[in-house]
Amino acid sequence: MSLPRFWLAKLLFAAVTVVAISADALAQEKTEQPPANPPPRRFGGPRGPFVLSPEVHEDRRVSFRIHAPKADEVRLNAGDIPGDPGERVLKKGENDVWEVTLGPIDPGAYRYTIEVDGVNVVDPKNQSVSESNGNVWSLVHVPGSDFMDAKGVPHGAVARVHYDSTALGRTRRMHVYTPPGYETSDDKYPVFYLLHGAGDCDDSWTSVGRANFILDHLIASGNAKPMIVVMPAGHTGPFSFGAPPPPSSDGRPSLGNNAFEDDFAKDVRPYIERNYRVLTDRKDRAIAGLSMGGAQTLNVALKNIDDYAYVGVFSSGVFLRNTEEWEKENAAALASASGKEGLKLLWLNTGMDDFLMPRTKETVELFKKHGFNPVFVESTGGHTWINWRNYLNEFAPQLFQ
Amino acid sequence: MSLPRFWLAKLLFAAVTVVAISADALAQEKTEQPPANPPPRRFGGPRGPFVLSPEVHEDRRVSFRIHAPKADEVRLNAGDIPGDPGERVLKKGENDVWEVTLGPIDPGAYRYTIEVDGVNVVDPKNQSVSESNGNVWSLVHVPGSDFMDAKGVPHGAVARVHYDSTALGRTRRMHVYTPPGYETSDDKYPVFYLLHGAGDCDDSWTSVGRANFILDHLIASGNAKPMIVVMPAGHTGPFSFGAPPPPSSDGRPSLGNNAFEDDFAKDVRPYIERNYRVLTDRKDRAIAGLSMGGAQTLNVALKNIDDYAYVGVFSSGVFLRNTEEWEKENAAALASASGKEGLKLLWLNTGMDDFLMPRTKETVELFKKHGFNPVFVESTGGHTWINWRNYLNEFAPQLFQ
Repeated sequence: MSLPRFWLAKLLFAAVTVVAISADALAQEKTEQPPANPPPRRFGGPRGPFVLSPEVHEDRRVSFRIHAPKADEVRLNAGDIPGDPGERVLKKGENDVWEVTLGPIDPGAYRYTIEVDGVNVVDPKNQSVSESNGNVWSLVHVPGSDFMDAKGVPHGAVARVHYDSTALGRTRRMHVYTPPGYETSDDKYPVFYLLHGAGDCDDSWTSVGRANFILDHLIASGNAKPMIVVMPAGHTGPFSFGAPPPPSSDGRPSLGNNAFEDDFAKDVRPYIERNYRVLTDRKDRAIAGLSMGGAQTLNVALKNIDDYAYVGVFSSGVFLRNTEEWEKENAAALASASGKEGLKLLWLNTGMDDFLMPRTKETVELFKKHGFNPVFVESTGGHTWINWRNYLNEFAPQLFQ
Repeated sequence: MSLPRFWLAKLLFAAVTVVAISADALAQEKTEQPPANPPPRRFGGPRGPFVLSPEVHEDRRVSFRIHAPKADEVRLNAGDIPGDPGERVLKKGENDVWEVTLGPIDPGAYRYTIEVDGVNVVDPKNQSVSESNGNVWSLVHVPGSDFMDAKGVPHGAVARVHYDSTALGRTRRMHVYTPPGYETSDDKYPVFYLLHGAGDCDDSWTSVGRANFILDHLIASGNAKPMIVVMPAGHTGPFSFGAPPPPSSDGRPSLGNNAFEDDFAKDVRPYIERNYRVLTDRKDRAIAGLSMGGAQTLNVALKNIDDYAYVGVFSSGVFLRNTEEWEKENAAALASASGKEGLKLLWLNTGMDDFLMPRTKETVELFKKHGFNPVFVESTGGHTWINWRNYLNEFAPQLFQ
């Protein structure tokens, strides 16, 4: 009874979780023939022809494929990939496999979904995903970047940390990057709090954002100080399992309420300062965020202006609240001499095609009016992860120097 | 120009990544009416009615829903949820939203996909996913367990660690659980290597497997020693972006080759012992795995029998290779007196409905024949994550005592 290939085949047929690669799939790929007799329906889902998706070619073109036997229309949704979205129509080929090839595409990570007859589908053949705000995207990585590829540098670790939020009354999750050497060192490290956008979650900066690899490269080259990067969850509505956030009492959606700031002040930052070897002087604390996270960054930093020496606002500004009210609420911090004195960097970076550019410019003017020295950088491009990865790569080297 | 709600709405419409929750979705849910004029197609995918999925009800029934306007047949695939898979047909309701409600379902985590006209779809409205072997599953958590819910206990951290595998010549990823208190302590900890199955990846034990929460509870109650749990990637073919593994030279699929053992011995274990505060005596090292990972566990442990004091085999046995050949290859270890002497526990646990039960029994007999004292536990159930979570909960308390 010692027939390993028999048992292997049995395992592959019977294990309910094995759907992607099987001996059958390999055999089919070789012969390019569907099986003569379709095997019976299984728990694991329908069997079909071997499908490779996404396929990143040597020249950085990328092919997306999906097996959809009954579909009439299949499209690719991938907002960050430049080009006309209207042209991203997959064409039906052999074995009911639909396909489109885009590019060459610049090195980077790109979220996408495939829309099959109006249903937005995560690529069934792609293990790589990026969690979002209540949903999930497929992720394709196009290699070739010298600042965010995984290879060639020592790696820090990215921890998923669950903590009990006293502010929100439930268990929450954040991601924490510790730099190479952290675990074997006794040193204390500066801390950079890095916030995500409205379409993201605490997973996003280290999936589509490649923040850990960007820091790995900057630290390896000596261009950035070794630091801990804390990526909390910015949404405070019960998004995890799909329920909508309750509107706040004044009717505003929960994006603009104070729940995140409470969670951050009462739980996130204390948890980090209690559980990691961190420096706690103002000069060793930075905060930045993109889009919604940029607005939250301003709220958090202005509330405790004497605690933060570096503040970064990516593709954002004051926009979650009425700007005049915001100015009034933060009048003391905006007038504070000590607040300005110890603020080594207030950095705003937005793309010229970004719809939030007016918010950024208004925010820059607001800070200037109150005697701050904001650094405003206008990049090319729009409201994309392409820009946010670049901004992180430009902002992090300026910290803790 | 200070109109926060206007800007908020603009943000929600324009940000390409915002697809899940919007002010519109909230409004629609309230009125239960589709918009009179469908808004134009956007990068982020089609707009549709508000859909909540999955919805876990108080009584532990779970509703699964998907918006699929053109579909003819929609089914749920969720092998671990007990019941007749043939009855998991979603029915079309208002606004082209399909729905099925199952249960009550026992507390736990369950992988599922939704099959829309033959296309296996990750739930577009569920952010919670479990990475698999070359693909990804949606994940629903049904609360109510006293040993794996997140709440009520201090939490360890789960790190995603990238390392350069010299054995495989590329960057690889593993997950590492460090117990509560690890970061602020100077203690050294015992290490438990925990391997996944053929339908999984290094993410699986801490997503569908809830290993971190199981350990949190065991450590909090004093039933298990604080330990580091290392969860490496067991597949060595280039699965990440969908390419199939090359067959080995003798024609066997890559599941049975030595690549994982090489990666483990040359890179995974040395990386952990170099980068974490770990105890390195035999009595402080354990290894276990499920299914494919159980077979790998036996390969790894027998090759260095004097290094492991605790060996666990979940729903498995010798099955990736010819058993007689395996016995010959490992003759020295099977005959070693020191190997047996320091082996505090050789534990095999398999469900009575598991198709691998014959492999488990044959493996138990094999070890008995060579003078080992294997502990064999037959549970109810089959080849499921329900059992593997239970087995971990039973195995971990026996370690390092």
